[in-house]
Amino acid sequence: MDRVEQFSAINRRVLLSTLAALPALSATVLPGAALAQTPGGLLPSWNDGVAKQSILEFVRATTDPSRPTYVPPEARIAVFDQDGTLWVEHPMYTQLVYCLERVPAVVAQKPELRDVEPFKTVLSGNREAMARLSMRDLEEILAATLTGMSVAEFNAEGKKWLETAKHPRWNRPYTELVYQPMLEVLGHLRDNNFKTYIVTGGGQDFVRLYSEKVYGIPPEQVVGTAGGTKYGYGTDGKPFLTKEPKLLLNDNDAGKPEGIHLMIGRRPTIAFGNSTGDREMLEWTDAGNGARLMMLLLHDDAAREYAYGPAAGLPDSKVGTFTQALYDEAKQKGWVVISMKNDWNEVFPPSTVGRTTR
Amino acid sequence: MDRVEQFSAINRRVLLSTLAALPALSATVLPGAALAQTPGGLLPSWNDGVAKQSILEFVRATTDPSRPTYVPPEARIAVFDQDGTLWVEHPMYTQLVYCLERVPAVVAQKPELRDVEPFKTVLSGNREAMARLSMRDLEEILAATLTGMSVAEFNAEGKKWLETAKHPRWNRPYTELVYQPMLEVLGHLRDNNFKTYIVTGGGQDFVRLYSEKVYGIPPEQVVGTAGGTKYGYGTDGKPFLTKEPKLLLNDNDAGKPEGIHLMIGRRPTIAFGNSTGDREMLEWTDAGNGARLMMLLLHDDAAREYAYGPAAGLPDSKVGTFTQALYDEAKQKGWVVISMKNDWNEVFPPSTVGRTTR
Repeated sequence: MDRVEQFSAINRRVLLSTLAALPALSATVLPGAALAQTPGGLLPSWNDGVAKQSILEFVRATTDPSRPTYVPPEARIAVFDQDGTLWVEHPMYTQLVYCLERVPAVVAQKPELRDVEPFKTVLSGNREAMARLSMRDLEEILAATLTGMSVAEFNAEGKKWLETAKHPRWNRPYTELVYQPMLEVLGHLRDNNFKTYIVTGGGQDFVRLYSEKVYGIPPEQVVGTAGGTKYGYGTDGKPFLTKEPKLLLNDNDAGKPEGIHLMIGRRPTIAFGNSTGDREMLEWTDAGNGARLMMLLLHDDAAREYAYGPAAGLPDSKVGTFTQALYDEAKQKGWVVISMKNDWNEVFPPSTVGRTTR
Repeated sequence: MDRVEQFSAINRRVLLSTLAALPALSATVLPGAALAQTPGGLLPSWNDGVAKQSILEFVRATTDPSRPTYVPPEARIAVFDQDGTLWVEHPMYTQLVYCLERVPAVVAQKPELRDVEPFKTVLSGNREAMARLSMRDLEEILAATLTGMSVAEFNAEGKKWLETAKHPRWNRPYTELVYQPMLEVLGHLRDNNFKTYIVTGGGQDFVRLYSEKVYGIPPEQVVGTAGGTKYGYGTDGKPFLTKEPKLLLNDNDAGKPEGIHLMIGRRPTIAFGNSTGDREMLEWTDAGNGARLMMLLLHDDAAREYAYGPAAGLPDSKVGTFTQALYDEAKQKGWVVISMKNDWNEVFPPSTVGRTTR
């Protein structure tokens, strides 16, 4: 199979039109976001309402052995989409920003790519030309920047980038733009012996670089879009793994329950998402026996974050699309829709150094 | 890709010549093996010696924060091969016995297979003819018996079989023929906050059916040879997953470190194996920084279990081959070779109902 073809499935969520918002690299290193503390009661960043009460009541109902809804600790599996559910996904998926910003380094190692498209356009820095890149061009960029190196090299490069890159709107590291209310949910669930997983359309190896520090979720509890690796030996006889341009799991849409089966092997008790890419994961969770909790985050807060749907009359978006059909399915099935605007009194963790630039 | 072809990698460890030992089904249900208790000190089924001391000292060295060999709890990952390391693999891999015994049920659902090879030969019950089946024939049998049904159906059938099937030599359920000394190692490691994983060439979905009950290892900590699944909806609108004849991970040889990267995302601290299929897993573990423990079980006990190598002058075997080259690599690299005969004072857990039939 063509190496580019193999990546085609990864990229369906890529939004070309947002390429113009590509931020510049920043050299300032900021500390990672702290995990949630709850001095003012449980879930302090949540306003009282159906969403907050649904979470608290579900945890009580599944951890009290005297209730028929009790779930034994080993079956307490909670899965969370990442982009748009745990951290900001607009104007562009963070991993795609990484890939575009990696292009100069790739070309430095392979100078023959300098005058070859799509690398030439990315190197030009011309945002309008970049916004016109085709899906196939982007696939080529992903393959060139995420594969063909050892796992150790990929990890080192990715970590370095995450320490310095900043979101253009808030001028804060991406790893600080996680949702404080969701950090509180993760902590509350773990306090009640739920095992928390990320189930993301993003690259599994990329998310594993920061999931433990940022969310308290260890690498073995990150399920994501995953490529193959190849075992080999260096000239010193030491073994290493090379990242290959071979797609094993496209962890979007129906790929989410398939990935959950592959990597976890149990049906979740709780599932959080925010877009049509999470629909099948919530359906799969809902279809189990006993108590289940399904929740969807609606981005309806342009002032503090972003507003997009097109559900509920919000502006349409190709990144993190929340259709009216998904909204209707949620209402019909009793899934809880979280309003960022109404249900959250804080969006991001506090930062002593972060500031809003617009 | 041909559905048969896709299974070819799974079967390289299959031993045709042992097909003649196929046991008959038994209807008696025996309780699962109990997890290790250690009333007489740690690892009571281990005789004093290098192997036992290596395990105990490694745990002390990695859990004492004052020692330079200390490993923080989150990095304490221990991986175990299954066939021949945690339970009996002779004369034939248990899952292969399952597949052969499933053939009548498959033919009952698809009568057109009754007179088609290789199903016809398996149905004949002629052990000599079965022993002459080609690798391609066996691949066809695996595909027909492990895929093409829903995950729920597969789980129900597999569990039913495991409750009734017995090993021909001991007349005990396969799930009782686990090694008592290894159950003690698993327990001792977990008592010291090691996370224990199975990393097996066997089918991930098959091993997950009993791993929690038999070894105390939950499904999400079983890494094995894995096929794809496909999400779909029943006529009632309920979603289900179908097992597809598409190989995602061949978890043997180099596939073991590749599978560990995919499913765990961290390098193990401890690795146990028993055959050349585990070589790369031990090499990968060994290549990490800091304290690492690599151990290989040598089956040198024909009286209580089996004796095969061909390492150390033992009889050659196509099931669980332990070559002299692997033995030499172990000695050269300081990996510990466990002698079943000398290091273990018990092999299996006690059973009030089991008995030896030869």
